[in-house]
Amino acid sequence: MSASAPRTYAESGVDVGARATALRALLESSRYRAPPSHGRPVALPGHFAGLVRIGGETLALTTDTVGTKVLLADRMDRWEEVGEDLVGINVNDLAAVGARAAGLVDTIVCARPDDDRFRAIGRGIRRGLEAAECALLGGETAVVPDLVHGIDLGGTALGFFPKGRRPITGDRIRPGDLVVGIPSNGLHANGFTLVRRLLSAAAVDLERPRPGGREPVGVELLRAQRMYAKLADAVADRAGVHGLAHLSGGGVRNMVRLKADVAFSLDRWPDPPPLFRWVQGLGPISDHEMFQTFNMGIGFVVVVARDRATEILARLRRSGAPDAVEIGRVERGRGVRLPARSLSYDGYA
Amino acid sequence: MSASAPRTYAESGVDVGARATALRALLESSRYRAPPSHGRPVALPGHFAGLVRIGGETLALTTDTVGTKVLLADRMDRWEEVGEDLVGINVNDLAAVGARAAGLVDTIVCARPDDDRFRAIGRGIRRGLEAAECALLGGETAVVPDLVHGIDLGGTALGFFPKGRRPITGDRIRPGDLVVGIPSNGLHANGFTLVRRLLSAAAVDLERPRPGGREPVGVELLRAQRMYAKLADAVADRAGVHGLAHLSGGGVRNMVRLKADVAFSLDRWPDPPPLFRWVQGLGPISDHEMFQTFNMGIGFVVVVARDRATEILARLRRSGAPDAVEIGRVERGRGVRLPARSLSYDGYA
Repeated sequence: MSASAPRTYAESGVDVGARATALRALLESSRYRAPPSHGRPVALPGHFAGLVRIGGETLALTTDTVGTKVLLADRMDRWEEVGEDLVGINVNDLAAVGARAAGLVDTIVCARPDDDRFRAIGRGIRRGLEAAECALLGGETAVVPDLVHGIDLGGTALGFFPKGRRPITGDRIRPGDLVVGIPSNGLHANGFTLVRRLLSAAAVDLERPRPGGREPVGVELLRAQRMYAKLADAVADRAGVHGLAHLSGGGVRNMVRLKADVAFSLDRWPDPPPLFRWVQGLGPISDHEMFQTFNMGIGFVVVVARDRATEILARLRRSGAPDAVEIGRVERGRGVRLPARSLSYDGYA
Repeated sequence: MSASAPRTYAESGVDVGARATALRALLESSRYRAPPSHGRPVALPGHFAGLVRIGGETLALTTDTVGTKVLLADRMDRWEEVGEDLVGINVNDLAAVGARAAGLVDTIVCARPDDDRFRAIGRGIRRGLEAAECALLGGETAVVPDLVHGIDLGGTALGFFPKGRRPITGDRIRPGDLVVGIPSNGLHANGFTLVRRLLSAAAVDLERPRPGGREPVGVELLRAQRMYAKLADAVADRAGVHGLAHLSGGGVRNMVRLKADVAFSLDRWPDPPPLFRWVQGLGPISDHEMFQTFNMGIGFVVVVARDRATEILARLRRSGAPDAVEIGRVERGRGVRLPARSLSYDGYA
């Protein structure tokens, strides 16, 4: 719509490659092995959560921030949704190792505290806690006007494995498994640096619906993410559940985090919802970029043994995801493919 | 030195009262009680860590950020110290409930990733992990140029209680107990919004030592905080250890978090080190403000039964704190007093 619209996430100011390189430098230089008297970490590099064994329990820890979705919240002056996302981004990552959330701590880094905004964020956090059945165990509020604009929202969630359950890491995934997808309910909290640039370049009025939309597009974009935690919990104890993935930042590339030496062929991916197609058209953005930046309509994935697929799909449908669908299968090879769109991705970065 | 130097933390842009009010709004609106199938939170409002029981284990979770000390790191282009602080701020808070650190996740929110800085931060994190004997379990790196200047560093630590140890909450503190202090090694990571304003108003050259100093004052101010975790761990199983406090943001007011219905009379507080007196003179800042903003030379406190004090002090001295000293006692009343300086504080905020 405008010559200045970015075409990729990198053009919008987020260079995923540079991030990966810097992250590698950080991880290499911070490497340290603690003595077993301080717990026993379970090696699971690049996964959705870190695991550590303490006494007879295995605990999972995951941390994430809402990112620049807060800048849209600021512009719309609506803070409940991003408060709820603060919970969702973290418990959905816990769910991806099969852990049940036991507690959350929030981190609010703001230029200045504001009662109304904090109250709205708190209401959103409560909704998220209710949906995840998770306690708020504490938090930190840093007032640092020289460091941030507005309000940065992050959190960390602690999860555990109910008696008899083992972490679900993806190691049992094998060619022949089926891939079940649970639809998302919007953009969740990913890709907003790109989205905001696109909105700005196209001078979109956030107070009006997009073509075909029913609510102001600013509100539609802010919608708090679906909570997959209870859905994952409902199937995590079942035989045949081989892998779970939360399609957050990185889109379909997140599948690679489960297992590197198989190929995920997503040949039945449903048509992306109109909101995604509208965002894509603002660029226009390529399919390749869209599927590695946004969830494109599927927010959570369950990889299941072929002979258990019917049973597990039925269980998901009974447990709050009547819309769960088969979206593909596991084959020999590597990476993620969407053959109908001629897309393929090698790794997660 | 200059008419524009702030006299208080609030004048430097951090209004502690407004922060407390907004935080209350957040806490009230986010209140939710999770079902026991998701772990059993241990009520410990306002304490240094949140506790939750899972199976047979009690876990502790604490989260904190390095705050605006990173802006000084940026100016000096030295990142190891704040990387180490990212660990210290969190494991020292865990230590204040008697928990042993099992794992840490870091959160780096930056405008752009940079290999050299990330590598230096990683080296600092490793030093911190070594000193705390704690594993890095994961982390999040958010690239959000529209949201932050520079690099915001935060983290969350997970702690546990070795077999036979109970959380040390302060509930057993009683009049007659003695207060032992462990000296800090500098400003740690607190009060830097005020410090930076003072440095700027006085046009301090960070590359030169302050009067009486031996290294560039920018380097002296950046020094990574002392690790109290192993010291606390060395005494946490002993009878007579009634309370532990990490004197981070809020200074001596942190004592109130241990127990509200006793008075901590710190009548033997050692002379604050020259660095603190020099910072104070830049304002000048009142004693009252200094003691509620900085650690003023004592970074960690152990409250002990009078009849065990000699034994526990000796054990601290053998375990890495030869400089531990008695700094006061517990009396009837409320709050914190430094009688020699006519200072008193009611609550923690």
